[in-house]
Amino acid sequence: MIVELSVVPIGVGESLSKYISDVLRLLEERGVKYQLNPMGTVVELEAFSELGELLEDIRKHLEMKGAPRIYFVVKIDWRKKGTSMEYKIESVKKKLGKS
Amino acid sequence: MIVELSVVPIGVGESLSKYISDVLRLLEERGVKYQLNPMGTVVELEAFSELGELLEDIRKHLEMKGAPRIYFVVKIDWRKKGTSMEYKIESVKKKLGKS
Amino acid sequence: MIVELSVVPIGVGESLSKYISDVLRLLEERGVKYQLNPMGTVVELEAFSELGELLEDIRKHLEMKGAPRIYFVVKIDWRKKGTSMEYKIESVKKKLGKS
Amino acid sequence: MIVELSVVPIGVGESLSKYISDVLRLLEERGVKYQLNPMGTVVELEAFSELGELLEDIRKHLEMKGAPRIYFVVKIDWRKKGTSMEYKIESVKKKLGKS
Repeated sequence: MIVELSVVPIGVGESLSKYISDVLRLLEERGVKYQLNPMGTVVELEAFSELGELLEDIRKHLEMKGAPRIYFVVKIDWRKKGTSMEYKIESVKKKLGKS
Repeated sequence: MIVELSVVPIGVGESLSKYISDVLRLLEERGVKYQLNPMGTVVELEAFSELGELLEDIRKHLEMKGAPRIYFVVKIDWRKKGTSMEYKIESVKKKLGKS
Repeated sequence: MIVELSVVPIGVGESLSKYISDVLRLLEERGVKYQLNPMGTVVELEAFSELGELLEDIRKHLEMKGAPRIYFVVKIDWRKKGTSMEYKIESVKKKLGKS
Repeated sequence: MIVELSVVPIGVGESLSKYISDVLRLLEERGVKYQLNPMGTVVELEAFSELGELLEDIRKHLEMKGAPRIYFVVKIDWRKKGTSMEYKIESVKKKLGKS
């Protein structure tokens, strides 16, 4: 499944990039392939249990870094036949005549 | 933590209420307290692992019901000091002078 | 169309209920019918231009109240045949055997 | 402001890439700079009225292409001091030691 995570720590001021870089470091430590975009981070996961663990890791870490509140927006695209980040982008670009 | 789930089965036609009622039945079977609204279902969960299990249950069930693809939007509000669905609504209404 | 707004002012501390009550007051002043839930506010709108105006009103107001940054999550359900907040809830409850 | 659009036509089958490529073509015709990712499309907009117009254009077009229902998820990051897609990515990468 493809998942986009948006993680918004609340109560730590206006600038959040420091916290987002921590989230990316966690993804790297877990060996999760990711694509950063200006509004979120897209990952491929095998199972919902993996998503639960990842979110818990992020929460623990940001709590440790001082965040009293965290707002998450998680979008998930699950397909029975499977999918990948590359496949999704390619199939759009092909129809756009750009690949 | 407070979680809003929006579950959108794709490839099963335009009307989705049958699938949403199945999701609510799953919540009831699991003993999860929920509030249905026109754009999602709000629940209180103890842990991210519980969220992972719940999403997996929903996915399995909707796949069984014939959905080849499922799109989820999950919003999560976690607070260190704890929170509840009632508390969130009440604190807004109080400031609005309505409780 | 049915729209759920989640408005998250950033850089104004951990407690946000004061700002949410301001958003609801704006909706009341504009005569927009709304349903508050613990994770957002659901409204019925006629057109996307109305959504644009509403979001701009909210932004202006929260900026005036001191928010240096605002994060919005907006979910929209548009149907050609029309829909309503009540209809969506009723059609799910009917299938659940609860209406 | 930075905006991520996720557009999900409902009732047109499982494969959606054809519709997404149409959305991108609309963005190009309007001269809106965009970044496609596997879960959405990120754009920079000047005003909420521009967002309203863009969503209305997308709706009209997808209705014409046969979609009886459209689900949108729109995330917006507005900052008083201004921001850009590049700035957001760069400030995260810098903290990650990758730029």
